[in-house]
Amino acid sequence: MAIILGDNQYGKAESRLVRIVRDSPRHEIRDLNVTTALRGPFEAAYLEGDQSAVLPTDTQKNTTFAFAKSHGVTSIERFGLDLARHFVTDVGPVEGARIEIEEYAWQRAVVDGVEHDHTWLRSGQEIRTAAVTVDASGEHVIGGLKDLVLLKSTGSEFAGFLSDEFTTLPETHDRVMATALDAKWRFTSTDVDWEGVYAEVKRLLVAHFATLQSLALQQTLWHMGRAVLEAVPAIAEIRLVAPNRHHFAYDLDRFGLENQNEVFWAADRPYGLIEATLLRDDAPPAGDAWRASAGLA
Amino acid sequence: MAIILGDNQYGKAESRLVRIVRDSPRHEIRDLNVTTALRGPFEAAYLEGDQSAVLPTDTQKNTTFAFAKSHGVTSIERFGLDLARHFVTDVGPVEGARIEIEEYAWQRAVVDGVEHDHTWLRSGQEIRTAAVTVDASGEHVIGGLKDLVLLKSTGSEFAGFLSDEFTTLPETHDRVMATALDAKWRFTSTDVDWEGVYAEVKRLLVAHFATLQSLALQQTLWHMGRAVLEAVPAIAEIRLVAPNRHHFAYDLDRFGLENQNEVFWAADRPYGLIEATLLRDDAPPAGDAWRASAGLA
Amino acid sequence: MAIILGDNQYGKAESRLVRIVRDSPRHEIRDLNVTTALRGPFEAAYLEGDQSAVLPTDTQKNTTFAFAKSHGVTSIERFGLDLARHFVTDVGPVEGARIEIEEYAWQRAVVDGVEHDHTWLRSGQEIRTAAVTVDASGEHVIGGLKDLVLLKSTGSEFAGFLSDEFTTLPETHDRVMATALDAKWRFTSTDVDWEGVYAEVKRLLVAHFATLQSLALQQTLWHMGRAVLEAVPAIAEIRLVAPNRHHFAYDLDRFGLENQNEVFWAADRPYGLIEATLLRDDAPPAGDAWRASAGLA
Amino acid sequence: MAIILGDNQYGKAESRLVRIVRDSPRHEIRDLNVTTALRGPFEAAYLEGDQSAVLPTDTQKNTTFAFAKSHGVTSIERFGLDLARHFVTDVGPVEGARIEIEEYAWQRAVVDGVEHDHTWLRSGQEIRTAAVTVDASGEHVIGGLKDLVLLKSTGSEFAGFLSDEFTTLPETHDRVMATALDAKWRFTSTDVDWEGVYAEVKRLLVAHFATLQSLALQQTLWHMGRAVLEAVPAIAEIRLVAPNRHHFAYDLDRFGLENQNEVFWAADRPYGLIEATLLRDDAPPAGDAWRASAGLA
Repeated sequence: MAIILGDNQYGKAESRLVRIVRDSPRHEIRDLNVTTALRGPFEAAYLEGDQSAVLPTDTQKNTTFAFAKSHGVTSIERFGLDLARHFVTDVGPVEGARIEIEEYAWQRAVVDGVEHDHTWLRSGQEIRTAAVTVDASGEHVIGGLKDLVLLKSTGSEFAGFLSDEFTTLPETHDRVMATALDAKWRFTSTDVDWEGVYAEVKRLLVAHFATLQSLALQQTLWHMGRAVLEAVPAIAEIRLVAPNRHHFAYDLDRFGLENQNEVFWAADRPYGLIEATLLRDDAPPAGDAWRASAGLA
Repeated sequence: MAIILGDNQYGKAESRLVRIVRDSPRHEIRDLNVTTALRGPFEAAYLEGDQSAVLPTDTQKNTTFAFAKSHGVTSIERFGLDLARHFVTDVGPVEGARIEIEEYAWQRAVVDGVEHDHTWLRSGQEIRTAAVTVDASGEHVIGGLKDLVLLKSTGSEFAGFLSDEFTTLPETHDRVMATALDAKWRFTSTDVDWEGVYAEVKRLLVAHFATLQSLALQQTLWHMGRAVLEAVPAIAEIRLVAPNRHHFAYDLDRFGLENQNEVFWAADRPYGLIEATLLRDDAPPAGDAWRASAGLA
Repeated sequence: MAIILGDNQYGKAESRLVRIVRDSPRHEIRDLNVTTALRGPFEAAYLEGDQSAVLPTDTQKNTTFAFAKSHGVTSIERFGLDLARHFVTDVGPVEGARIEIEEYAWQRAVVDGVEHDHTWLRSGQEIRTAAVTVDASGEHVIGGLKDLVLLKSTGSEFAGFLSDEFTTLPETHDRVMATALDAKWRFTSTDVDWEGVYAEVKRLLVAHFATLQSLALQQTLWHMGRAVLEAVPAIAEIRLVAPNRHHFAYDLDRFGLENQNEVFWAADRPYGLIEATLLRDDAPPAGDAWRASAGLA
Repeated sequence: MAIILGDNQYGKAESRLVRIVRDSPRHEIRDLNVTTALRGPFEAAYLEGDQSAVLPTDTQKNTTFAFAKSHGVTSIERFGLDLARHFVTDVGPVEGARIEIEEYAWQRAVVDGVEHDHTWLRSGQEIRTAAVTVDASGEHVIGGLKDLVLLKSTGSEFAGFLSDEFTTLPETHDRVMATALDAKWRFTSTDVDWEGVYAEVKRLLVAHFATLQSLALQQTLWHMGRAVLEAVPAIAEIRLVAPNRHHFAYDLDRFGLENQNEVFWAADRPYGLIEATLLRDDAPPAGDAWRASAGLA
C-alpha cells in the first residue's frame, strides 16, 4: 500500500479589491472579493517542501490588484478570465487556474434629486458571484448570485406529502414562502454580454418566484431555473440552493386574537434546504467547472 | 461593608416578528427584531429566587406578537411605545420598560415592469432602529439606523494632524472615505411623523456625507448631525458612530503601473472609529433614554 | 437655540496583535485585540476640520504595537494602563484615554505527552476582556470575560412567577439552564495580581453557577456576583449579562417516546436576557469607567 | 433541446440537538447540529408540484430528535448511520440519504478540584464533523474536524519559491505559521471505534503540525495527512483545507525598536489557502461520499 497525493491546489483567498474609474468627474465603482487558486505539478512542494514551482499566494494577490489597473473590471466573469488565462499561460508550471469572485453592489447617492458623481450607498441586496476555471479541458465560466432574499406572503401551498410515523406537519394552502437564494449558472461560451445576462437572469428568477402559485419550493425552483435556460442560450446548466426560511404563524388564539397569516415568527434554525440542478440534455461536459477553490464557493 | 444590587433588568431579546397586512390584495410587510426589557423592584428574584413579581420573558414575547396583531406596526417607534406603555401601565410591579427594535427593509419585486402585490426582495441596505423607554421620568424615543454603508471616491482629505515619534502616516488631499454609519437620534416628542422623519434624516445624512469636502471624518459627522438637528425640531440630540473603513491605494509602482487612486485594498481590521454627539443647548434631560437593554443596542 | 458638540472620542479599533516571548526555547504567546480611544479638546476637528490636536488613529496603532515590544504584555489590564497613561501624559492635548482589549487564550500542543515549546491550539473557551480609562478623575480598570458558555442539565427551576393574560409558560422544577456569560468587574486599585484575580473570578463564577439550586437565572447571577465581591477586595462592582439560551425538551410523546429531559432543541432566538449589577455599598465613584469606546465593548 | 432535472436533494438543515444521558447522577452531554438530506425519484415534486413521494423536512427533523432518544448518540458517525439507514430502508421512495453532523465539545466544570456531575463549559476548540451517505453504492462515512486553530511561533520557513514580475515577497527562514484546519477523512468500514479514532487523528494532526520543520504549509499538510493514513487502516483518504492565517512581523525599526519575530499583526483577509487530498493507492471508490448536502459541508 502506498500513500499518494490526490487533488490539490493553493491560492490566495478573499482579496478585497475596490476599483474606481475616474476618467471623468462621474466615477464608477466595482467592489470585489477575489480568490485565486492554482493547480498543477506541485507534488514536490507537498512531499519535499520544494517551492521551486510554487508561485507565492502573495504574488497571486499582487497580480490581482495589478490586473485591476491594467485590464480593468468590466465584469467579474471577464476579470476572472483575464486572471485565469494569465496564470495558465504566463506562469510556467501552472496547468489550471480557478478564480472565484464576489461582487458587492453600490447605488449612487441621490442629492437634491440628482445622482451624485462620486458617492455611493452599498445597496446590500444579493451578492453577485463568478467562478472561472481555465485548464486543459478548456475555459469554464459560472455566473451566479447568492443571498437574494425573497419572500411572498401568499401564493404558496404545501400539501399531499408523504407521511410516516414521525409526520406531524399539517397541510397548508396558504403560507409565507421565503428563501435566501443561491444560484449558479454555467455558460457554454466566453463571448457573452455578462452584465446584460446577469440582469436578465436575476429578473427571471424573481419574476417566476413571484408569479408561480407554488405547491412546493421544489416546484418553484424548477420554474425559476427553466425560465433561465429557456431565455439564455449561452447557459447550459443552473444550480439552485434554497433554504426554506420558515415563517410560522404565531398562535394568537390563546389570547382571543385571530391570526389569519398576519403575524409570523421568523425562525433561524433549523430550516428546510432544497436543491436542484437543471440542465440542457445536450449540455457539454462540465470538466472542472464546478470544482471549487474551497474559498468563496 | 454590604453588597447591594444595583441596576438590573430582564427581558426577551430578538423576537423575529414579521407582520403582513393583507386587507387588500396588495399586501404590506414589516420585518422586525424586537427586544423587551423590564425594570422595577425585582430584588427578591435576585436575592431569594422569588419570582412573584417577575413576568416571564416568554410572556413578554407573547405580548409582542399579540400586539403586532392588535395594535399593528405602523412604525417601530409607535410599536415600541405601545409595548412599553402596556408593560408599565398594565403589569403591576413594572416601573420601567425598554423596547429596542430593528427593522429590515423590503422592496417589492418588479414583474413585467409592475410592482408585485405580495412578493418582496430584502433591500438589505441600512437597518432601521428604535429604542423606547417609558418610566417615571417620562417617555423617551430614540430613532436610528445602523450599517448604512457609504463611500466617496474623492472629496476627502486628511492633513495637518498632530504627530509624535510614532507617527508615520503621510498626509493626503485625496482619499477614499467609507463608513458603516450608526446613528441614533433622540426625540423630544412622541407626536411625530415617524416614517416621514426617518426618510428625511437618512436623506440629510447621505447628502451631507456626499457634498462636504471632508477634512476629516470628524468634520463630516459634525456636518451630518448638524443638518439633522437644524431640519427636525423634534430631535434634540444625535449620536454618530462611524468606523473609518480604510481603503488603501495598492502600491502598483513596483509593477510599473501608476495607481492614481484607482485600485484599493479594502481592509477589515483595524479601523478608525470616530464618535460624536451633537445636541441642542436647550435639550431636555435624557433620563434613561440611552440606557440600553444590552440586547440589540 | 444653538447646536453644540457633546461627548466625542476617536481612536483605532481592533488592532489584532500577537506577542511572542522567545527569550528561551519555551516561547510564550499573548493574542490580543486592542482598541484605543482618545478624549480631549477636539472641537476644532469636528467644527472646522482642523486636525492640529488630532493624533492620527494610525499613530495610535503604531504605538500599540511598539508598546507590545517595549513594555511587553504581562496582563491585558497592565498593558492597557501602559497605553492609556502614555496617551494622557505624553500627547499634549489628550485629556482622557480609553483602552479596550480582548484576549484569546491558547493552550500548548501536547506531543508524546509533553507540552510543546512553540506550538499552541487556540483554546477557544471564553474571551478575556479589559477596559482601562485614564482621565482627570483618575485611573479605572475593568476586568472581564465574555462568551463563557455554561450549561447545567439539572438543578434549575422556574416557577411561582407573575402571570397575566399573555402568560402561557408552564412552571418547571427541572430544566436545562445555559448561558453565554458576559461579566465585567471594576477594580478600585491598579496594584493587583491581574492573572491571579482573573483565574479566581472565573473559578468562582463557574462554581456558583454549578452548585446553586437555581430558582431563576436572576438568583444565579446574584450568587455568582456576590461570591466574587466577597472574595476579591480589590473589586468594587461586577456587572453580569446572561442570555438565557433556551433548551426546549422536544415533544416525543407524539411518537410514543418518553422524554424525561433527555432530548432538547437548542433555540437560537429569541432568548431571555438577564442583567445585574452588584456593588459594595461603599464603592467609590465610577467616573467614566463604564463609558465604552463603542469598539469592543 | 430539452431541459432536464439533474442532481437534486432536499432536507432539513441545522437541527440543534442536545442529548443528555441521565441514567446516573453523573450526566453525559452530546451537543449536535444535524442536517439531513434525501435523494430519490422526486421529479414529480419539481416538475408538477406533486408531493406524494416527499417526506417533509419537518418529519426529518422529528425523526432526528426521536432517534436521539431511541437510539442514543454514542458517536456522531454512528448516529448518522442510524438515521441514514432508516430513511433509505423505511421510507419508500428514498434511495439515498446524506446526514451531516457537527458536534460541539463540552468539558466538565471543576468545583473544589472535582469534576461536576451535571455542569459543563463549552470547550470551544475544534468542531467535530461527520458526513454519512447511504445509497445504492453502499455506506460511506466521513469523519472530520474544522476550526482547529493551530499556531507555531517558529519552525516554519518559506523560501526558494517561483517568482515572476509580480513577486515582491521576501524569503524567510523563521516565521509564524497559523491555520484553522479543516480535515475530513473517509472510512472504508463502518465497524470502527469512532471515539478512539477521532482522538487519535486529532492527536496525530497536532503532533505533526508541531514537530515538522516546515518548508511550506503544503509540506506540513502532507506530513499530517500521511501520519493519519499510516496509523489508521480504516481510513482510505483524508482531505485537508488550511487557510494560512498570516501573522506579519510589525515594522518597529521606524521607532528604534528591533522586532525579532516578537510582535505580529494578525491579518484577517486575504489569506493563503492550501488544500490537499491524500489517499491510499488502493482506496475503494468514493461513490457519493463527498457529495455534500450544501448544508453544513
